[in-house]
Order: sequence, then C-alpha cells, then structure tokens
Amino acid sequence: MQSDSIGSRQDQDDGVWREAPAFSDHESNVRYYGRNFPTVFETASGSIMRDRNGREFIDFFSGAGALNYGHNDPAMKARLIAYIASNGITHSLDLETGAKEAFILAFQKTILRPRDLSYRMLFPGPTGTNAVEAALKVARKATGRSRIVAFDHSFHGMTAGSMAVSGGALRQSPIIPPIGGTIFLPFDDGTDDSLDRLESMLFDAPDESRLPAACIVETIQAEGGVIVARLAWLKRLADICHRHGLLLIVDDIQTGCGRTGTFFSFEPSGIVPDIICMSKSLSGMGLPMSMVLLKEACDRLSPGEHTGTFRGNDLAFVTATAALGYWSDGELECAIARKSARLHDRLSEIAERHPVVVTPTVRGRGMIQGLVMASGNLARRVSAEAFVRGLVIETASPKGEVLKSLCPLTIPDGDLEAGLDILESAVAAAES
Amino acid sequence: MQSDSIGSRQDQDDGVWREAPAFSDHESNVRYYGRNFPTVFETASGSIMRDRNGREFIDFFSGAGALNYGHNDPAMKARLIAYIASNGITHSLDLETGAKEAFILAFQKTILRPRDLSYRMLFPGPTGTNAVEAALKVARKATGRSRIVAFDHSFHGMTAGSMAVSGGALRQSPIIPPIGGTIFLPFDDGTDDSLDRLESMLFDAPDESRLPAACIVETIQAEGGVIVARLAWLKRLADICHRHGLLLIVDDIQTGCGRTGTFFSFEPSGIVPDIICMSKSLSGMGLPMSMVLLKEACDRLSPGEHTGTFRGNDLAFVTATAALGYWSDGELECAIARKSARLHDRLSEIAERHPVVVTPTVRGRGMIQGLVMASGNLARRVSAEAFVRGLVIETASPKGEVLKSLCPLTIPDGDLEAGLDILESAVAAAES
Amino acid sequence: MQSDSIGSRQDQDDGVWREAPAFSDHESNVRYYGRNFPTVFETASGSIMRDRNGREFIDFFSGAGALNYGHNDPAMKARLIAYIASNGITHSLDLETGAKEAFILAFQKTILRPRDLSYRMLFPGPTGTNAVEAALKVARKATGRSRIVAFDHSFHGMTAGSMAVSGGALRQSPIIPPIGGTIFLPFDDGTDDSLDRLESMLFDAPDESRLPAACIVETIQAEGGVIVARLAWLKRLADICHRHGLLLIVDDIQTGCGRTGTFFSFEPSGIVPDIICMSKSLSGMGLPMSMVLLKEACDRLSPGEHTGTFRGNDLAFVTATAALGYWSDGELECAIARKSARLHDRLSEIAERHPVVVTPTVRGRGMIQGLVMASGNLARRVSAEAFVRGLVIETASPKGEVLKSLCPLTIPDGDLEAGLDILESAVAAAES
Amino acid sequence: MQSDSIGSRQDQDDGVWREAPAFSDHESNVRYYGRNFPTVFETASGSIMRDRNGREFIDFFSGAGALNYGHNDPAMKARLIAYIASNGITHSLDLETGAKEAFILAFQKTILRPRDLSYRMLFPGPTGTNAVEAALKVARKATGRSRIVAFDHSFHGMTAGSMAVSGGALRQSPIIPPIGGTIFLPFDDGTDDSLDRLESMLFDAPDESRLPAACIVETIQAEGGVIVARLAWLKRLADICHRHGLLLIVDDIQTGCGRTGTFFSFEPSGIVPDIICMSKSLSGMGLPMSMVLLKEACDRLSPGEHTGTFRGNDLAFVTATAALGYWSDGELECAIARKSARLHDRLSEIAERHPVVVTPTVRGRGMIQGLVMASGNLARRVSAEAFVRGLVIETASPKGEVLKSLCPLTIPDGDLEAGLDILESAVAAAES
Repeated sequence: MQSDSIGSRQDQDDGVWREAPAFSDHESNVRYYGRNFPTVFETASGSIMRDRNGREFIDFFSGAGALNYGHNDPAMKARLIAYIASNGITHSLDLETGAKEAFILAFQKTILRPRDLSYRMLFPGPTGTNAVEAALKVARKATGRSRIVAFDHSFHGMTAGSMAVSGGALRQSPIIPPIGGTIFLPFDDGTDDSLDRLESMLFDAPDESRLPAACIVETIQAEGGVIVARLAWLKRLADICHRHGLLLIVDDIQTGCGRTGTFFSFEPSGIVPDIICMSKSLSGMGLPMSMVLLKEACDRLSPGEHTGTFRGNDLAFVTATAALGYWSDGELECAIARKSARLHDRLSEIAERHPVVVTPTVRGRGMIQGLVMASGNLARRVSAEAFVRGLVIETASPKGEVLKSLCPLTIPDGDLEAGLDILESAVAAAES
Repeated sequence: MQSDSIGSRQDQDDGVWREAPAFSDHESNVRYYGRNFPTVFETASGSIMRDRNGREFIDFFSGAGALNYGHNDPAMKARLIAYIASNGITHSLDLETGAKEAFILAFQKTILRPRDLSYRMLFPGPTGTNAVEAALKVARKATGRSRIVAFDHSFHGMTAGSMAVSGGALRQSPIIPPIGGTIFLPFDDGTDDSLDRLESMLFDAPDESRLPAACIVETIQAEGGVIVARLAWLKRLADICHRHGLLLIVDDIQTGCGRTGTFFSFEPSGIVPDIICMSKSLSGMGLPMSMVLLKEACDRLSPGEHTGTFRGNDLAFVTATAALGYWSDGELECAIARKSARLHDRLSEIAERHPVVVTPTVRGRGMIQGLVMASGNLARRVSAEAFVRGLVIETASPKGEVLKSLCPLTIPDGDLEAGLDILESAVAAAES
Repeated sequence: MQSDSIGSRQDQDDGVWREAPAFSDHESNVRYYGRNFPTVFETASGSIMRDRNGREFIDFFSGAGALNYGHNDPAMKARLIAYIASNGITHSLDLETGAKEAFILAFQKTILRPRDLSYRMLFPGPTGTNAVEAALKVARKATGRSRIVAFDHSFHGMTAGSMAVSGGALRQSPIIPPIGGTIFLPFDDGTDDSLDRLESMLFDAPDESRLPAACIVETIQAEGGVIVARLAWLKRLADICHRHGLLLIVDDIQTGCGRTGTFFSFEPSGIVPDIICMSKSLSGMGLPMSMVLLKEACDRLSPGEHTGTFRGNDLAFVTATAALGYWSDGELECAIARKSARLHDRLSEIAERHPVVVTPTVRGRGMIQGLVMASGNLARRVSAEAFVRGLVIETASPKGEVLKSLCPLTIPDGDLEAGLDILESAVAAAES
Repeated sequence: MQSDSIGSRQDQDDGVWREAPAFSDHESNVRYYGRNFPTVFETASGSIMRDRNGREFIDFFSGAGALNYGHNDPAMKARLIAYIASNGITHSLDLETGAKEAFILAFQKTILRPRDLSYRMLFPGPTGTNAVEAALKVARKATGRSRIVAFDHSFHGMTAGSMAVSGGALRQSPIIPPIGGTIFLPFDDGTDDSLDRLESMLFDAPDESRLPAACIVETIQAEGGVIVARLAWLKRLADICHRHGLLLIVDDIQTGCGRTGTFFSFEPSGIVPDIICMSKSLSGMGLPMSMVLLKEACDRLSPGEHTGTFRGNDLAFVTATAALGYWSDGELECAIARKSARLHDRLSEIAERHPVVVTPTVRGRGMIQGLVMASGNLARRVSAEAFVRGLVIETASPKGEVLKSLCPLTIPDGDLEAGLDILESAVAAAES
C-alpha cells in the first residue's frame, strides 16, 4: 500500500468528513456504517480499501467478518471473471448447476471429510439470518418441539425468527411482535451458573414434549463484545443438550471460516453440533451466500418447506469453491496462529500503555480480538480517530465499549503492524 | 438457439432423468426445483439455458422472476466483469461506495423522477424476505402500532416475520411459532366483500391505537396462482388505508421490474404505496439484491435499527445500474405490450383446444400469465412433459394447478413461439 | 311492590345522585355499574330491588342475566338457609359432597335426559370466564389443535384466554399480551358471507393439523348489542364444524337458563354443541357457579389438568338444584312465551311512537330484547332517566346504543307493565 | 369430635373406597380431589368434616387454604343466615350495596389502617385467578409495559393469563397457546443467584420501555411444595423492583388471611407491595370472593376495563366482614404463633422418627408446614393412609413429595394433636 496516503485528513474543503449527498438525500435514515466511516469507497484489494480520493485504509473490519480472505483475492477473482465471461449460470434458485455441484463436492472433500464430520448441506437465502431461520425450522421439525434456548447478548440476525433468539429477554425490539418460546440464559461468565440453571430447568420439565427443540449458541459472541466461551463450557453445554435431547445449533457465521484459527470455531472444543450456520466469509469474496449444515437425522424438512429466491447464487458458489483452496493444506492455519499471537501481544501492549483501556483488556481467539475501552464513547472516539488516520475498525457490545479487531486472515505482516500502529495512536488521541 | 437439441429425452442410459449424486447424497432433503427439472445446468444466455450435456432449454421460469432481462445480458455482463477486474469493492455492508451511489442516483433519475414518485431507499439483506421484514419494521415504527392486514394465498417470504403475513389464517406452518397480529382477508375475488369487511373492521376499532399498522398486498398473487387484483380494487384498498391511517405496503418483488408491463406493477392503478418491496429482477442479472422504497414520512427507523451483512452487494449495484438502461426510453414497455398480447392469445388458443385446461383459463397481466389446468397433478405432468421437450415452466397456486408462464421480458419472438409450441405439445401429451 | 316509592328522585339534599364515599374513596377506578346506578342497594325480592333509603326499583337488568328467577326466590332461599343452618359443607374444591351429587343427578334428570342430550359436567372456577377458559382447554386437548374461530362483537369473558376470543380482531386490549390463533369472522349479518368465508378457509387448510380446534359462538350476542343469530345460520355453522372436525362451543352463559324461552338457547335450532358453557343464572339465586357440558368424546383432560379453588361452591349447588324445580314441568316456558310476546309488542310500540328509537328497532328472542336508539349517548340518557324513575336497565353493544331489557323470567305482569311504562317515559324524557 | 368414628375403614361391603356413581358417571374426567379422598362429604364444623356415613375427618386441608377459620364458623354463619332471611341482595355485579360497603369500610379500618397501609380495593371475578389476571392488567396499564417476571414452580391460577406466569419456562401446558413475555427466574434457593440475574437483566435493558411491567411472587410457594422465601430475599426483590420501576405483585391468595401468622404473609419482611392478590380465605367461610389491593398510583384502569359477573358476591361480603372480627385484637395471631410452634415441633419429631421423611424435612411458616417425603409415591401413600384413618391432608410440589399441612388456624388443640397422631401413624404405615 502507499503508506503516505494513509490517514490524510481533509475530505472536503473544510476538512470535515461528510456523507456524500446521494446517501444523505436518498437513502433511509437506518443507514449506519457510512455515517461512521464517511467516505465513498471505490476499490479494494487484500487488506487495503481505497476511497474516491485515492486515500487508502487498512481494513480491520473485513465486512464484519465477510472478508476473511481479504478483498478481491486474485485467484477467486480470476475464477469469477472466467465464469461470467463463459455465460455461466448466475442465478438458479435450487436448480442443479455445475457451480453448485463443484462447491458441494469440494466442501465435503476439503472441509468435512478431513475433520471426520458428516453433514447434509442446506442452502437457504443468501444471508446469515436466512441460515438461522432455516436452522430453527430444521430443529423444530426434527424434534416436533418449539422452544429455543439462547443466550443474553447473542446476535443471530435481523429477521423476526432470528431476532427472537437474539439479545436477551429484555432486548427484544418493540417494533417486531413477540415470538414466544425463547429461554434466555447468561452466556459463559466464567462460572457454572448458567449451565446449572439450564440443567435444573430441563430436569424440571414435566415431560419431553415441553423440552426446548434446540439451543443456539455462538462460540464467541462477536457483536456481543467479543465474549469468548470457554471450551469446557461449550463441551458441557453440548453434553447437556445431548443428554436431554436438545439439538445444538452453532451459529458460526462470524466466527467460522478460519476466523478463530480453525475452519469451524468449535473444533478445539471437540464438540460436534447437530446444526451449523455458515455465511459471511463462506463465499470467500464477499458475495452473498449462506449454508446450514445438518446431521442426517435432523434432515426432516419436506421438499420446498424452506425456499428463497437467491439460495442458488452461482457466482458465490464459484468463489466459495476457490476459497476452499486455502484449506487444502495447513498453511493458512499456521499463518493465523502466528498472526493471532502477534495481534494479541500488540493489543496487550496498547492496553498496558493506555489507561483508557480497561484491564483485563484484550479478549478473543485467533484473529478476532477485542480491546475493551472504559466507555462506549471512548471506543467510538478511537474508531473515529483511527479512521482519519487510515484504519477502519468498528466497535461492538451492547454499550459499544469494545474495539473489535477483525482484519483479513491473509493480511500481510506489514499491514498488520501499520494498522496496529494507527490503532495505538488513535487510542492515544482519544485519551487526550 | 439450436432447436434440434431441444427436448432430447435420454439423460442416462436408461432414459430416466435423475438428480446428480452430489445433490442427492449431500444436499438437504428440502431441495426442490432440482427434483422437478433434473439436470445439471451449466450456462445460459438470453432466454436459453444449457445443461451439462449441451441440451438447451427455453426458460419460461426466469428464476421465479429474478431474470426479467434474461440470462447474462451482454451489457450488464461487460460492466460486471470490468468492475471486478478493476478491483471494485464487492462487499460493503452499508458503507458508501461508488457502485451504490451510482445505483441510487440512476434509480432516482430513471425510475422515480419520471413517475413523479418520491421515496427514500432502504437496502436490507439481499433477498426479498429481508425487504418484507424491513418493510414491516418500518411500518410498525412509523405508526407505533403492530397489527398487519394481509391476504389469503399471499406469499411474502420464508423468514418468520414474512411467513406471519403469508398464506392465510390456516396455512401457517407449525414449524415456526405463531406471531400474532396478522388479520387475513380474502384477496380480490371479483366482489367487494373483502374490502367491505376491512372497512367494517376498521370502523369498529375502539380507538386508533388498535388499528393495524399496515396492509401488505401483491398486485398479482404470483405464487398464489397468478390471481390478478382489479385496478379498482387496488384503488379502493389504497383509499381505505389512507383514510384510516394504515400504511400501504406493495410487495412488488415478483411483479415489479417490468413484469406486468410497467416498471412498478401498480402504475396503471394510479395508487401510490407508502412502502414498496423490490428484489428478484432488481439487480438485472440474478444477483442477490433487495430494496425497500419508503415515503419520507415513514423513514423513522434509527440508524442501525435494521442491518444485514449483505445489504451492500456492490456487484449487484453494478448490474442493477446497468439494468436501468432498459428504462431510459419506452422501447422495453412497447415490446412487453406486444409480446404480452401474443402470449395471452396463444395461451388462450391452447386453452380452447385442450379441455384439460379449465376455462376461463388464462389469467395474468403483461408477461406473467397463468394457464389453469384441471388439477395439480395434471399441471405437474405438463411441466414434466415440457421439460423433456426443452422448456422450463413451473406450477403455482396452493394446489399447483396453474402453469405460470414467466419468460424473460426480452425473449426473442422466435423463442417465445418455440416455447409456446412446446407448451402446447406438453399439454397434449399430459392430456392423453 | 309499593309503586308510590318508585322513581322518587331526590337522593341527597341537593337531589343529585352520588356514589357513597366508601366506594369513591376506597374502590378502584375500574368500578362501573355503581357509577351508572348510583345508590346503595340493600334488599331485593322477585323483580324489585330496594335501596338504603327504601326506594324501590324494577329490575330489568337481573345481574346481567344472573338472576333469571328473580331475587331471593323463596324456595331457593329456604333451601339455602336450611343447608347453612345444618352445617352443610360450604366449600369443597372438587371433593364429592351431597350437595354436588344432588345437583348432578337433578340436572341429568331434569334438563339433559328429557332433551335427549348426553353430556359430562365439568365444574371450573365459579364464573363464566372460567367456563370459557376450561372449554377452550377441553377443545384443544381433544383435538390436539389450537386455533379458535370466534366472531366479531362476541363477549366471552375477561381473563386472557377468553379475551383472546372476544370482540374481534381490532378490539383486543393492549393491556393483555396477544394470544395468537383466533380467527375472527363477522357474526350473522343476514347474509351467508361469513360462513362462506369459514368454509373456504377450511377447505384451504393444507392439512388437518392446521384446522382450528373449535368454533365458539353465542346464539345471541348479548353484550354485542342483542344481535340474534338466525336458526338456519346456527345450523349451517354446526354443520360446517361437524364436517371439518371443529368442535362447536356454545357460550350459553347469558342466554341459557331459559332466557330465550327454552333452557338452552340453541334448542329451537336443533343443533347439538360439543361443548356448552353455562354460568350466571345456573345457581338460580345469583351465587357464583359455572359449568361446562362436554360430549363424552371431548372429555380428555387429565385429572387435575384444570382446577380452581371455588369450583365446588356448595351453597350454589343447593340453590341450583332448587332452581331446576322451575324446569320440571312446562309452566315456566309457557309464561316466558307469553311475557316475551308482550315485551316485544310494547317495545315495538315505544319504538313506533318515539323517533329517537331507530327502526327496525326491537331485536331479541324470548326475554332478552334490545331497543336500538339513535346513539350511545341517547341510550345512556334513557338508562339514566329510567333509573331516577325507578327502573334499572343497562345499555349494550360496542357503541352502547342498545337498551337491553333483561328482566327476570318470573317477573309479575304488573311489574313488567310498570317497568315498560317507566321505560317509555324515560325515552320520552331523553328525546326532549 | 367423636374420635371413635375417625378412620373407620369400610366404605362399601368390600371395604374399598370408591367414588359415588353420580361423579364417575357424569362428572368430567378432570375431577381430582374426589378421587384421592373418595367419600361423599355432607356437613362440617370447625376442623371436622363429616361424610354421608357419619364418619368424621380432621381437616388438615382447609379447602386448599380457603377455610382458615374452619368450617361454618358460628358467627359468620349466623350473620349469613340473617342476611339471606332479610332478603339481602345476593348478587350485584359492581352495583353498590350495603354489604359491600360494610366490608370495604371494615377492611380499611381493621386491616389496612392499623398496618399503616393504603390501598384501593378492586373486586374482580370471585376466584384467585381472576385476581391475578386483574393484577396483571393493572400493572400493564399503569406502566405501559407488558413483560412480567415470575418464578419457577410458582402457581397463580388456571386461566390463560395466570398460567402464563405460573410454573416456569418449561412447564407451560401445550393446551393453552403461549403468551409471551414472562421471564422466569429460580425462586429463592438460599443463594443470591436469582436476584443477581434479575438485576443484571434489568441493567442490561436498552431502555425503560423494554423493562418488565411487574414481578409477581408468592412469599411461600405453597403449591410449589411449601418453599419459603427468606425475608431478606423478599426485601431485596422489592428493592430491585422499586429501583428499576417494576411493580411488585404479591400473590397472597393461599398464604394471606393469617396463614403464616400475620394477616398478610409479607408483613414480617417489611416490604410494601404495589399490588396484592387476595382470595381463598378472604370470605371467611369458603364463599367465592377475591380482591386486588393496589396502590393509588397504579389505579389506572378505566371504568369497566375489567369486569365480571360475580365480582359482587354479597353473601361473601357478609361473611368476609364477619371474618374481620378475628383481626380486631391480637388473639388469633397469638394462637397461631403457639399452634405453629407445636405443629412444627411435632412434624419435626415425626421426621426424626421416620427415615422415609427426608431431612431437613419440615419447612414452612406459621400454619403452613410441609413434610418432605422421599418420593411422591410415598407421600401419596401417606395421604391415603391418613384418609382412611380420618385425616384429610394433601400433597404438593411438582413431584408431589411434600405433605402440606394446612389445618384451620382456629383448630382446637385436641384436633391438632389427634390429626398429628393420625399423620404419624400414616407415615409409619406407608413406611412399612
């Protein structure tokens, strides 16, 4: 990257960054990220994004986890262009296409078989929330039951079914009508309380028909503020579900595809979920795609019982198949391990040197790491200061006090260091 | 197209069409279309799809309405390849990008301003159901109320919020928990009964706080079996909504983008909805994209109150902007008018000649036309017979007795005639 | 009665009627009837109530239908006093008592057997809404389904389950959370529309599991404004329910116990409901008691699956058994027929003579007759004018424009005439 | 009592106790207590019940808490007979009557003022569940919010609104449709966990509009198995509710009216609930009556917003007023204290002497004490053995392992000792 162009401040004549009028005049008030990172982006490659004025930004955001392999990966790009140029099918609902077949076979071969996992693949609509909605249907149909156990501060999506299992008992928005039947428990807080409560509730059910259908869990609550579940906690959760006949759904939408160091985030725990929700980085190049993996025994929906216009996004199948190339040997995992350690060390140093960072301060696993600031306001100031210095990084958690570092897994060492340098200077600036 | 390859029957050695094992072995049982049209498609252009064995099929299906401009439109394709080749941003959440800006400005200029319409644009997740879920949130937030009026046999999507307004009071699947608050009425059945009931219900509400927030309606119930609302019925519905303070949501996902002869399907009725849901053919080339248009006064969601990973699918913005080129002059509309008349005439002839087609038999508007068979089984046989003869056409309605003709708006006259010839011979075959 | 004391106007020194301070100071704001009929009642017998100042009022209200046999019927009173004096059990949950046994046997013998009806008897809590809640549970358990068909303007009670089937889609109070699953249809409006819609909805259900469990109906919507269902309409409703496997629940709480001329209000229609809700006049003397009658085949609740502290109100069993004496011969029915005709004639005369009464103006069956005024305000003024003249009569319907005449079935002819005289003079006064 | 007739075993010729045929032939299968205590009771006085064969039973059941002052208290009985004989109004909806006025004034004077409490009185339908439903409406209307915090193993009634706050997340019966919005927490289990979770949930609510409206709690979970909340726990709960703006509803239906030693069960804790539900022993003589006490600030229901046919059960007002005589001096409270100690000591002795009683074994407060057996089966055998020996005592808790001693507060010492003797011999018999 041209480092000299990073962080140049003046956007307009008066040096204030503003949204372009096309957006402020015509887009809905609900728009969000463009307000926080107010420039018009045009191109991107690897871990660098470029705006209309030629300024470059290091990307510690990665499309909220949709760009684990960076922007416009050359191999994926080449395959995609070739496919389009050859008049490959672009849209196919769930008709069978060569692009889809190639992905299915490659995923089975590259990901599932080496891990000794056996799942059927369900392609819902192309975004994460469609995967969660489909997973909940799968679980309810397979068990004949309807309640769902979910966790406080979880985030599973913005359609009504996903919202019903997100956030916690008192976070449900009044703008969607309530869907009953979700039982919220605290997420792993370092104690056994939450799982104790789950067990006692399950023992207390008068009969099997009143048990929950499933438990849906993130291994790391990313939107919730990078809260990491202990592996032993996940194991006990899986064990409780198994013993009581609840299906275990892991929402690996943000934490999957290598983000935590392994393809699936739950691998180190040894658990085998009944249902897995995938999306975001699945297509490799940021194209809309999602997938539900389900155990054969759960595969009980009738043909057509869940559908969706864009479940066959063939361009995404093409890039997704290419992306699996990263998993044909152990190289990516090694690189993630090395970079994760570096990331954690540098964030820890920043935390130590800057009292506005709360201690214990750095949490995460692999390449998702959160830096906990003293307040949401402070974290937002750091994010803003970082942006003007040429780094895109967002805040997370209900109160927004966590800076969530989510750079591409493939980030060059130089960009990683440069990004962390900017982050530290932004923390310092926010502090003063 | 190479007409000699159309309809060649033998797929395997034994002449029976079968799903490829990649799908039957690894994909979920919920898969649907691939069972009805069992071949592996590879490429497509215009109104022709080609399978792995080089056979060609005329497409009277168009991705269930997602391919109004045909497959791989050359102009869109060129723009898309150029964008990718230049490292254009592919994924942007709702960051501001040049591709999105271009689409916003072009849509305002080409579509809204000439029709004297003024709407803000909201980009939810990339598929139709995300648009419906967002529209319902918009309506509930703007009114502070929550009930929704919807119609029997409607179809608005497969996530929980959309399902709650789909199908009718007794069609809700037991595999999602009930969301209360939907009031179903019969769709236009040629009488005033349904709207009379709506009015009497609204007059009967004890106070404004108990009124519905909105009414959601399709101008033609496509999945419902190509049931066309009379323009006067739509007008009266809009009028009732307006007088009682309900927002009117038109779901134009399948019927918009020119399908019925005008860009928006409601144009001939003269109504101006408060909220419009768009998706399917919006991106022009089958890429996942959806949009909610909303009147300024309804634009009350807070920043970030509805989000989604793939609401910024920049590749779709690129092709969608290119697709607007079709609307810069009146040529497409003229062609649709001409072809619609031809389509309707030929379907009517088929109906007259074949007693298995129920009379009055042909219904629809513009390029969505349904041929009503005597039973669902018969319609499915016609669809199967058509497929082996080289035509892809699906069935619709709850009982499946309607053959839904949904060819590209841009279909060459020759392909249209050839497709209709196949359809007629399939009807004859099914009859015997 | 001492007719000279009827209607004496002055309550306090200033002639204004006021609530006694015990009520305005200490009772909740939710209190209702005491505001409309502001005096302190002390004693009553037959169709006459007496207040603290010795004024007498003719009772055309009858405890909203709970006093069909008038106040303090001498035979019931004697039995009740004897029972209490002998230390009869007063409260027994559902322990078995002699008082309950006597009622069960007498009801079977006097009411059910002569009508060739066979029902099991379920005693829920002591008030009508408990009967409705129990009936809904019975229906859901027996069918394994949960939706309920109900009618606009119905009234079935004030607990959450009963409210969910009361009033219509837009009348549900925001102060109870919504219970989904009620399908409201218009009540008999003289056309076949409502039942046509019901049939078409039922035919449209994809499978039996989505059908409603039951339909709950009043034969006359008493609170709804004395709206009478035609017998043919009831018959067709019963027939539809029977053919589609819905249980038919008749809520005979206000219209049963002879109010319409027969013990059960549905007798003239020839229908045989699956479940019948009884309360109000069941105990004969105004004591809290309710009962659900259910066909053997519906009797599927497990022991204790519905309970309630006061389901064994033995004092009520004693008076209820005594009240059955009225049904051991045909005398009461003859008297009702005669008085009903007289009531209807006189109300019709009033209607003819007074243009503030809307025509067609008198509706009802047997001893429940409504006089429809031009507005709710006018009806309330008539009620107030009647009260100061010595007649208690309430208004009904959502807008309150109906004066509901509900005098005891046993009212002496003289009191009936005197009451109607007062009513006419009150109408005249309200008119001026 | 005639002790020689207690416990005579043979009911029929064969010595087996059976339900009388009137009940088994004609009453619904849902009937419950009559199966466990299978005889036909006829009369009762004080703490003794007599069946049709003249056998006597000591009553350790008291109508599940509805007969705290014993059966047919002579003073109440005399007042009731006199009232009926004088043609006192029996039924009055919420018309104002002398009987009701007398009760209101006496309750204010005898109960509220001496305790320095100030509440408005709301009379819902006549049974406990009506009081709970009304209390929930009051809370929702007063706060404009709808969620309710409730506790596992609670019991608040059998109508849909009350069931929604009863039992715990997994205990809701599938025979009523789910009402969302209840948040269940564990009841006091000796730790702070439950209230810690409540506090953290409340702090976590994004804004006030999403807070619960109220928390409903029993001071002792009677049906739940005589689980006693520590006074400090109640205090902290009240404090949390107060600080976060939740209304605190105490359901004192079974534990009020002196059962625990004071008129209200919460008195020793010093808390002042916003809303109190009363019923059961309120009328003193087992007549159906219930009442909601509410702080002036909560009194926001509109006139008629909650109604009910039997909210004016004047016979109950008469006996309820008489019952307040027990509270005009401290005598009853002294007697309860003395008898409670004796009850507790004897139960403890039984527990010590009989290993089938689990230790720690005796729990309760005042005159509600539970003896915890090793299993539900064992407890049921004790209850059955006690019955044939002349003692009526029921089991409680979800698994039924608790013998709940609930004798009249006014039980003579001799009957108390005799009852406990029978209980001990029944335990011994069950043990062998």
